[in-house]
Amino acid sequence: MISIDLNCDMGESFGPSIVGDDAAIMPLISSANIACGFHGGDPIVMNNTIKLAKQFGVSIGAHPSFFDLKNFGRKEIQLNEEEIFQLVIYQVSALLGFIKLNNAKLIHVKPHGALYNMAARNKTYAVAIAKAVKAIDPQLILYGLAGSYSIEAGLAAGLKTCAEVFADRTYQDDGSLTPRSQPDAIIKDPALAVEQVLMMVENGKVKTITGKLLSVKAETVCIHGDTPGAAVYAKAIRKGLEQRGVTIRSIKSEG
Amino acid sequence: MISIDLNCDMGESFGPSIVGDDAAIMPLISSANIACGFHGGDPIVMNNTIKLAKQFGVSIGAHPSFFDLKNFGRKEIQLNEEEIFQLVIYQVSALLGFIKLNNAKLIHVKPHGALYNMAARNKTYAVAIAKAVKAIDPQLILYGLAGSYSIEAGLAAGLKTCAEVFADRTYQDDGSLTPRSQPDAIIKDPALAVEQVLMMVENGKVKTITGKLLSVKAETVCIHGDTPGAAVYAKAIRKGLEQRGVTIRSIKSEG
Amino acid sequence: MISIDLNCDMGESFGPSIVGDDAAIMPLISSANIACGFHGGDPIVMNNTIKLAKQFGVSIGAHPSFFDLKNFGRKEIQLNEEEIFQLVIYQVSALLGFIKLNNAKLIHVKPHGALYNMAARNKTYAVAIAKAVKAIDPQLILYGLAGSYSIEAGLAAGLKTCAEVFADRTYQDDGSLTPRSQPDAIIKDPALAVEQVLMMVENGKVKTITGKLLSVKAETVCIHGDTPGAAVYAKAIRKGLEQRGVTIRSIKSEG
Amino acid sequence: MISIDLNCDMGESFGPSIVGDDAAIMPLISSANIACGFHGGDPIVMNNTIKLAKQFGVSIGAHPSFFDLKNFGRKEIQLNEEEIFQLVIYQVSALLGFIKLNNAKLIHVKPHGALYNMAARNKTYAVAIAKAVKAIDPQLILYGLAGSYSIEAGLAAGLKTCAEVFADRTYQDDGSLTPRSQPDAIIKDPALAVEQVLMMVENGKVKTITGKLLSVKAETVCIHGDTPGAAVYAKAIRKGLEQRGVTIRSIKSEG
Repeated sequence: MISIDLNCDMGESFGPSIVGDDAAIMPLISSANIACGFHGGDPIVMNNTIKLAKQFGVSIGAHPSFFDLKNFGRKEIQLNEEEIFQLVIYQVSALLGFIKLNNAKLIHVKPHGALYNMAARNKTYAVAIAKAVKAIDPQLILYGLAGSYSIEAGLAAGLKTCAEVFADRTYQDDGSLTPRSQPDAIIKDPALAVEQVLMMVENGKVKTITGKLLSVKAETVCIHGDTPGAAVYAKAIRKGLEQRGVTIRSIKSEG
Repeated sequence: MISIDLNCDMGESFGPSIVGDDAAIMPLISSANIACGFHGGDPIVMNNTIKLAKQFGVSIGAHPSFFDLKNFGRKEIQLNEEEIFQLVIYQVSALLGFIKLNNAKLIHVKPHGALYNMAARNKTYAVAIAKAVKAIDPQLILYGLAGSYSIEAGLAAGLKTCAEVFADRTYQDDGSLTPRSQPDAIIKDPALAVEQVLMMVENGKVKTITGKLLSVKAETVCIHGDTPGAAVYAKAIRKGLEQRGVTIRSIKSEG
Repeated sequence: MISIDLNCDMGESFGPSIVGDDAAIMPLISSANIACGFHGGDPIVMNNTIKLAKQFGVSIGAHPSFFDLKNFGRKEIQLNEEEIFQLVIYQVSALLGFIKLNNAKLIHVKPHGALYNMAARNKTYAVAIAKAVKAIDPQLILYGLAGSYSIEAGLAAGLKTCAEVFADRTYQDDGSLTPRSQPDAIIKDPALAVEQVLMMVENGKVKTITGKLLSVKAETVCIHGDTPGAAVYAKAIRKGLEQRGVTIRSIKSEG
Repeated sequence: MISIDLNCDMGESFGPSIVGDDAAIMPLISSANIACGFHGGDPIVMNNTIKLAKQFGVSIGAHPSFFDLKNFGRKEIQLNEEEIFQLVIYQVSALLGFIKLNNAKLIHVKPHGALYNMAARNKTYAVAIAKAVKAIDPQLILYGLAGSYSIEAGLAAGLKTCAEVFADRTYQDDGSLTPRSQPDAIIKDPALAVEQVLMMVENGKVKTITGKLLSVKAETVCIHGDTPGAAVYAKAIRKGLEQRGVTIRSIKSEG
């Protein structure tokens, strides 16, 4: 039986600023990456998002970021290895406080935005994050871009990793995502997105925009939650996968 | 044998901004209130300050604050009870991450600046903080202004509390500190400060600026670390107390 | 001929965080209060919002706030008079840079959120804001809650003021708005909201939730832009007023 | 007669956080780069620093930065050209508000920290800053690292520029400063620093750490104000230059 994890960034609202429709998305996913207050989230939102994840049996992950609320963690900031390491320790530890408060369990860590992107292509960032996750708890699963330094550093640190792929984004011949600035970057039809995921899950392949077939390891699919129509799209993806016999479940339940 | 705890706010530097002379003060105190990043401190500073406290056998406390780096946590912000509760959970939990990383132990919590002041005179703040500290770990000791709502709420929550007095500040007839705006607010002579502490510790009394004697419970003395000459003053206080036979030690070692 | 100003908070998005639907609201209003980066807004958004206001001939105002992105300027912060004065100077001056860049003109200043509320009931805040507005340009119009200290301080400073009323909120017998926590706080039917505005504009009266008639001076109506359905509601208000012969225009065009 | 400008970053304190000893440094310099609140400074400090500069007849400049109080503007952040442009517009405009309030005059703009460094070696940053300065006022003088893209972009934009050199730092053979991590990075003896400045001002040359002579254009010397002993060092530099017949004055007074 084939299974795949659907993960989504959750708890990114803060104060009166609402980001995403967590109540609509949570029932559709198997893993929630919960913001830790540095790009989104605040203590009350963090606490409530853990409760919501528990209610739907969704695996809880930490979603640490650069300290940059103004840019929602989307700008690349040059930090050294120790700064990145301690940045992750701080945020994951803060989330752990709310997890303990709710008798929940932290399963994974997925860096956010620019931190995720830099970890994928920059060894210093990848290694610092992997070390921090291991220092917090070597049982934690590190989420990262499939085939990137993030995964490599996680494995080198002895962590269990989870390779992330995208349902709604096209791939270029070098394995990277087509930049959003290009017209064919987004797969708007959920049926095509389901096909892409199925080919990745069943065959370990993805067809690039030029038609080339690349090998890819797919352990979790990123669901976007903060775009208009996100819940409808996510629902179509989930339903499409289930209709094709794929079970949606987090990676820990496979172990 | 008489003993007293000397506590000081530590780890309030952040990035390249240096606050206080932690290296000079740490050997002089028995309890360190470590900033948690909201008014001062950053992940690297938090980590290093825990190491420094361990090195000198100083008890470690969390020093949570309003989220206000710009004003160093010194402005009063109106929050509701849950916001205060979760504010404390977040910061203390973040510090706990670094404490775990260093195989250290968290002993107490002392709110910072405006949060400390509001907790002293506002029941909602006092109760929210006490509940948060208890939720994190009922063995934690809550530091608060002697005779204030902070202490009352801590005791009501079943926490061990530690009543704070001031060596270098004069008291008014109503038991409050003389505002810094007044000329006789500060006790500049360390010898007089030692006398004030001794009277509080030995007799449970403090002489006000008008000469009245008030009852006061003194379990810890606040040492200021971020003023010019702070280390010299603190050294004089410590030496003066020791010469009069007072042992400097944190409250936990009395238990 | 009767006229009224419709004002709305604009330009409160920042980075990738979208607040409100400015493109839909701008054509419906006569005055835009543009966020200055302290609770919302960023330099690019400020610049673009000025362009949008110009495009629709909407009067431009500055919308200064406490420095508190995390809480969207909705928390009360205790500042002294000079701090409030300079807070306003800073933000309005920053906006003036973008106004100059776009050959536009600043017409009014309306404080945001908690700063607006505190100015309405606290003389120190009201006076500091009025002084700052006057210091920047004595021709600026100060917006404030009708009948509040804001207006009083503006007039005392020799400023032209603009008394704000609410279309979608009910009033209590003391003239204050019914708190949102109460079930009858919001006027959900735009037709009733139009009636309330008409009575205020034509007769200078508002009917409270107990049926009492209070005198009120109405020079501008606050349109909320950041709630779901805000644009539809605003459109209904505007259309309703126009159908009853009320001209929508900013206060400056009356002079 | 030979003259040189001595410039120093000023007004970088914020709230109760004190950075540098502005009162001691201001009388020693001819140009003050005043922080605009993004890495340091706050509205009250900005206002007071302008007053202090006026008092000593020091030329006033804006010192814009990345929005990063936590790291004092010392971290490189990837922004696009428009973001950099508007970042500068915002901050310089905010400072202009206080300048107008004090009937002062803005003479120059010098980017701070990581923004300065990126502008020196990255054309996009250099061009965006130059365009912003010109858009605010084409009479403003742009300060930048001597021989860098900053100066090139300023000249290309038609701005008057001011090439900055360092008195207390050694140069490498490629013209760059020796990194602080290296033992010979700092010139600790003010007499040697004076010699370096004199050679740059009189002969347009600097001797590198290997003894090579490089050409350099020196129009302003950076004085560091936030290190221990900064005022003493700055005083020695100023006195040494004056004893050698060099007049200390800002570039505008040469025009």
